[in-house]
Amino acid sequence: MADADPIRRLVHAFTRLPGIGEKSASRLAFFVLDADPQVAGDLAAALVEVRARIRKCGTCLNLTEQDPCRFCADERRSPQTLCVVENVQGLLAIERTGEFRGRYHVLHGRLSPLEGIGPDRIHLRELFTRLSGVEEIIVATSPSVEGEATALYIQRLAAPLGVRVSRIASGVPIGSDLEYADQVTLSRALAGRRDL
Amino acid sequence: MADADPIRRLVHAFTRLPGIGEKSASRLAFFVLDADPQVAGDLAAALVEVRARIRKCGTCLNLTEQDPCRFCADERRSPQTLCVVENVQGLLAIERTGEFRGRYHVLHGRLSPLEGIGPDRIHLRELFTRLSGVEEIIVATSPSVEGEATALYIQRLAAPLGVRVSRIASGVPIGSDLEYADQVTLSRALAGRRDL
Repeated sequence: MADADPIRRLVHAFTRLPGIGEKSASRLAFFVLDADPQVAGDLAAALVEVRARIRKCGTCLNLTEQDPCRFCADERRSPQTLCVVENVQGLLAIERTGEFRGRYHVLHGRLSPLEGIGPDRIHLRELFTRLSGVEEIIVATSPSVEGEATALYIQRLAAPLGVRVSRIASGVPIGSDLEYADQVTLSRALAGRRDL
Repeated sequence: MADADPIRRLVHAFTRLPGIGEKSASRLAFFVLDADPQVAGDLAAALVEVRARIRKCGTCLNLTEQDPCRFCADERRSPQTLCVVENVQGLLAIERTGEFRGRYHVLHGRLSPLEGIGPDRIHLRELFTRLSGVEEIIVATSPSVEGEATALYIQRLAAPLGVRVSRIASGVPIGSDLEYADQVTLSRALAGRRDL
């Protein structure tokens, strides 16, 4: 590798990111070497900064600079409804709808017996310690086997406490064509039909 | 973006890398936040290190920690043959063949009138200052319009100086199927036919 251990180290560091193989990593490394030094500098600084300044909110576990995070600190958001998401990307997706005015809870994972991820590996305990005053938990985990298992687990534990547990709807996406919907999605859409 | 300017800055820094859009950048950033802190630390350190320690060889412009680079410093490599490549990736590709025992010259680009890249924008001047004692220049730029233009330009200027200029062959790749070769490649393969 061209005389250059630092280059090899950079390539290796890139390969540790998801979806980046040896070839892409090499392309990124040589791009960085050819580009304006600021590209590398900005990325290095942003990496260091994000690790130093971002932590989990003590309440909802959203990633944040301030604890409590801006959702937990926002008095206008109802503390009676919690939306449970797998990760911050899920939180951001829900937030983009502009429809949800409650609080969040970020699990940072989902139950997956196959991968050995049990209830103690995701932030479920923190969820159950904040249920006083909560009327509804909306489980917005992904519509996968793991997401469903997580939803069911929450339902089993929260229902006896008198908390309503709901699940976001699965079905055919708006704007899509029935013809291209997969069987499982379509079955779910049928099962979840509503009277008009 | 979840309360977190540092996250947004990291996403932005990732989008400046080639082939990484907003979505991939966001996925990388959240991966970094969830992963072992060492992943971010190693990448940041490698970026800083590569910028600090890697520079262009004063002779061939290969990227290197030591100047002259290991190819220019290697007395066993013939200084009578120069292989001209567009970039370090090209150099490494030639080197992997194990067939070339001369020296290199890295242009860090190629002529592209359409993109406004003229002879002064790539390291051509440095090539012509090192031709004394050189018998052959093998132009190993890519077989694209720009790569060909670059080869032709070098040929025009070097030939009058009594230096032989050759071009790596274009044609049907070994192991491929004629059926799937594109027209241009096949035309080139025909034109470049050799007596057996």
